[in-house]
Amino acid sequence: MTVVSVKQALAGGTAAADQEVTVRGWVRTLRESKGGLSFVNVSDGSCFAPIQVVATADLSNYETEVKHLSAGAGVIATGKLVPSQGKGQAFEIQATKLEVTGFVENPLTYPIQPKQHSMEFLREVAHLRPRTNLFGAVTRVRHTMMTAIHRILTEQGFFWINTPIITTSDAEGAGDMFRLSTLDLANLPRDDKGGIDWKKDFFGREAFLTVSGQLNVEGYAMAMSKVYTFGPTFRAENSNTTRHLAEFWMVEPEVAFADLNDIADLAELFLKGIFKAVLDERADDMAFFDERVMPGAIARLENFIAQPFERIDYTDAITILQKSGKKFEHAVAWGVDLQTEHERYLAEEHVGRPVVVMNYPEEIKAFYMRLNDDGKTVAAMDVLAPGIGEIIGGAQREERLDYLDRRMDQFHLDKQTYDWYRDLRRYGTVPHAGFGLGFERLLVYVCGLANIRDAIPYPRAAGSAEF
Amino acid sequence: MTVVSVKQALAGGTAAADQEVTVRGWVRTLRESKGGLSFVNVSDGSCFAPIQVVATADLSNYETEVKHLSAGAGVIATGKLVPSQGKGQAFEIQATKLEVTGFVENPLTYPIQPKQHSMEFLREVAHLRPRTNLFGAVTRVRHTMMTAIHRILTEQGFFWINTPIITTSDAEGAGDMFRLSTLDLANLPRDDKGGIDWKKDFFGREAFLTVSGQLNVEGYAMAMSKVYTFGPTFRAENSNTTRHLAEFWMVEPEVAFADLNDIADLAELFLKGIFKAVLDERADDMAFFDERVMPGAIARLENFIAQPFERIDYTDAITILQKSGKKFEHAVAWGVDLQTEHERYLAEEHVGRPVVVMNYPEEIKAFYMRLNDDGKTVAAMDVLAPGIGEIIGGAQREERLDYLDRRMDQFHLDKQTYDWYRDLRRYGTVPHAGFGLGFERLLVYVCGLANIRDAIPYPRAAGSAEF
Repeated sequence: MTVVSVKQALAGGTAAADQEVTVRGWVRTLRESKGGLSFVNVSDGSCFAPIQVVATADLSNYETEVKHLSAGAGVIATGKLVPSQGKGQAFEIQATKLEVTGFVENPLTYPIQPKQHSMEFLREVAHLRPRTNLFGAVTRVRHTMMTAIHRILTEQGFFWINTPIITTSDAEGAGDMFRLSTLDLANLPRDDKGGIDWKKDFFGREAFLTVSGQLNVEGYAMAMSKVYTFGPTFRAENSNTTRHLAEFWMVEPEVAFADLNDIADLAELFLKGIFKAVLDERADDMAFFDERVMPGAIARLENFIAQPFERIDYTDAITILQKSGKKFEHAVAWGVDLQTEHERYLAEEHVGRPVVVMNYPEEIKAFYMRLNDDGKTVAAMDVLAPGIGEIIGGAQREERLDYLDRRMDQFHLDKQTYDWYRDLRRYGTVPHAGFGLGFERLLVYVCGLANIRDAIPYPRAAGSAEF
Repeated sequence: MTVVSVKQALAGGTAAADQEVTVRGWVRTLRESKGGLSFVNVSDGSCFAPIQVVATADLSNYETEVKHLSAGAGVIATGKLVPSQGKGQAFEIQATKLEVTGFVENPLTYPIQPKQHSMEFLREVAHLRPRTNLFGAVTRVRHTMMTAIHRILTEQGFFWINTPIITTSDAEGAGDMFRLSTLDLANLPRDDKGGIDWKKDFFGREAFLTVSGQLNVEGYAMAMSKVYTFGPTFRAENSNTTRHLAEFWMVEPEVAFADLNDIADLAELFLKGIFKAVLDERADDMAFFDERVMPGAIARLENFIAQPFERIDYTDAITILQKSGKKFEHAVAWGVDLQTEHERYLAEEHVGRPVVVMNYPEEIKAFYMRLNDDGKTVAAMDVLAPGIGEIIGGAQREERLDYLDRRMDQFHLDKQTYDWYRDLRRYGTVPHAGFGLGFERLLVYVCGLANIRDAIPYPRAAGSAEF
C-alpha cells in the first residue's frame, strides 16, 4: 500500500500499472448509481480537483457505511489507480477498501453543503470554510505567494529579520496602535501623581503592537546590506471596511547603497516574480478564480508580467490628472496625496499597465524619507496597479543626520526616543531605500476577491478577534 | 563597473581577469602600512569574512579621506579583483577608487570597537550589534534555518497558515497572556454593574495575544491535510531568564491522518533537514561558533544528523531514571513531568543521541491530546536533545468528540468557547497529530549561545519591549 496525495494520484505518475494506492481525505461530492455503484469525490487539499473513487457493492462495508456517506466525511480509500472514463480527470481509483474515519453529524445541517454559500456566511464558519473550493484555492495561492516572497528575496541575497512585534515606541506614527498590558485593569496601580504607574506593567513601561518593522530593519540593513522583515503588523484603525485589516502581514525589504530607482527596480522584479510563481504553480486554482470569481484574473497577472512598469514623476502625474478631463471626486492640485480614483486613472487609463509615481511633496510623506535637491519633494514612490491602485509604497531614506533632525523637528518627534535611529546616521551612514507591501492586499488582487477578510485564514470565528 | 557582494568577490567567480568590480560595505578593521599603503577590510554582511581592499597613496582622496577611516565607516571600493598574497583569503581588491559615504562620529566612543564586547553591553546597543562578527553570523544562520523550515515543509506538501495573533480565547491555557486594548485606561468605560465595558473596546470584547496557533491550524489540517503555522507567539511569563522570551517565533506543523509515530518521524526529518541546511550553507559562520562560542558546535550538529533518534516510552524512561543511580534535584516517580536534568540524562548519558519520549501521563498534558487505550496516558511526545533537553513537544490529537468532551470537563473548559473546535470532531473527524518548536531555542542550540536574548534581532534597545 502506497499512500499518495490526491495531487499525486491525479498525476498518475507515482503509480505503476495495476498498483494499489491509498488516498486520504474528505468527501467533496458523491453520486450513487443504480445497481450498487457509488462515485465518491475525495479531496485532501493538495490541489484544486478531487479524485473520483469508484466504490461497488463488493466492498464489505458498502451497505453499512459507504451508502451512508455524505459531503464532509473523512475517508481512507485504497484501490487500483486507473485511467478515468469520466471527462475532466485523467485517473480514478477503483476501491478495494473504503474506510470511514468520521461521518458528518446531521448531514442536512452541516454548514458546508455542496452548493454556493454567501461569503458573509462563510466568514462566520471560518474553521470550516477551508473545506470549500474557494478557500482551498485561496490557501494554496497564499502559500505559494508567501513562500515565493522568501525564495525571491533569498535568491537576491536578502536576510529575513524578525523585527519586534511588541514595541515601546510609536514608530512612524503610521496609525493608531493597540496597547498591550498585563496590569489588572479593574485595579490599576497609580504613581504618586495619580497617573497609571507603567513601571508596574510587564515591560516596566508602556508597550504597543508594532505598526511597521521598517525603522528596526534599517538597523540591520546598515550591517547586512540587504534585509527584509515579513510578519504580522497591526493598525487599530476602524477595520470594518472591505479594504483594511487590524492584523495583516507586511513584507518590508530594505537595501543599503540603494536609491529610489534601485528600489523601484526591486519592486518590479519582486511583484513579477510572485505573480509568475502563482501562474506556474497554481494554474488549477487560478483557472477557478478566473472562471468563478473574477473573469480576467489570469490575463491581469499575465499583462502585469509582460510589460515594463512606467515611471512618472509626481509633479507630472498631477499635470496628467489635471489635463485628463476626468471629473474626480477629490480635487487634484500639486501637494495633495493621490486618492485611489487618481491612482487607478493613471495605471488603467493613462498608462494601461503598472506605474511607479516618484518624488512626492515632502509635507504628505513620512519624516524618514530623503529630501530631494529641490527642497520640496522627497524620494518616495508608490507602485500603482490597474484594478487596485497603490500596491507598494517605498522611499529612499534620509541618510544625512542634519536633514533627518530637521524633518523630525518638523514632525514634532522626540529625538531622544529615536536616538538609536539617529545613531545609524552617525556611524558610517550610507544611502539606503526600501518599500512596504501589505500581503493580504496583494492576495486580494491576485485572486480577485472583493473583501480583504477573505484573504486571511480566520476572520471573526474560531477565537480570532478580526472582524 | 560591476557591483558584487563581498561573498561573490571572495569567491572570485564573477570577475573576469583584470575586471574591475565594486564592493560596498563598512570598514571592519584597517591597518596602515608604511609608505602610503592601507589595508581596509570591508564587510557587507553577505558572508562571515570581510574582503581586503588595498588602498595606495595614488588615490586622490588618500590623504583627505582614506587615512581618516575608522572601523564602522561606510565605503564604496572599486578596483581590480586579484588573487591575494595574504593568508586566509583567496582574493583582494586593489582599489582605484575608494569613496567614503559616511565616517564614524567620534571613532574613540563608537560603541562597536574592533574588540571583544560583553554580550550584556551588546544587548544595550542592539541596533548596532549586527555589525559584530557574532551577530552577523547569528543573523545569517537564523535566515538559513527559517527559510529551511519553509522549504522542507513545502517539499513535504505542507501549506503555511497564518493563524491569528490577536485572539479572543485563552487558547490552551498554555501561559499568561498579554491583554490588548484601545480603551483609554485612565478613563475606562463601565457597564451597568460597574465592571469594565469590553463592548466598547476595539473588537467589542476582551482580546489577547496568542500563545499558540495550534487549535486554529487544526481547522486547516481538517481540509488541507498538511499545514503549519510559523509566526510570533507570546507568553507573559516572567521572561527575565536566559531561557525564556515574552515574544518568540514558533513553528507548529499539523498533519491529518497521522499518529504519534508519524509525527515523531516528521520531527526527526525536520530537525535533521534544518541542521543539514546550516552545515551546508553556513559553514563559515558555523566555523566561527565552533571556534569562538561553543567548541564542538559543528560536531554536535553532525552527530545529531548521523544517527536515528531513539524512542522510549515515558513509563520506561521513569524506570531508567530511577535505576540510573544518579541523584536528581527533582525526584523521579511515575506521574511527574520530566525536568531538564532528567531530559538531559536520557539524551546525553543513557542514549547518547536525540531521544523521543512518548506516551505521558494524561494528568500532566493538555486537554487536546489523545487518550491511549490504557486510559492513563496520552499520545504525547517530547524530542530531547543532548546539550539542551526538550526541543520539540507534540501529540496526536483527540479526534473522538466524546473523549474530548470528557477531557474538557476535567480541565474545566467552557464547551461553548471551544464549540468551533468540537465541530472539527463532529464533521468528518480523522486522526491527526502535530508538534510545536520554539524557533529561538533551536537557534540557541545551533549557535551555542548562552542567552536566548542573543537569538532575537532586537532585545531591550531600539524600541523593542523585549528584555
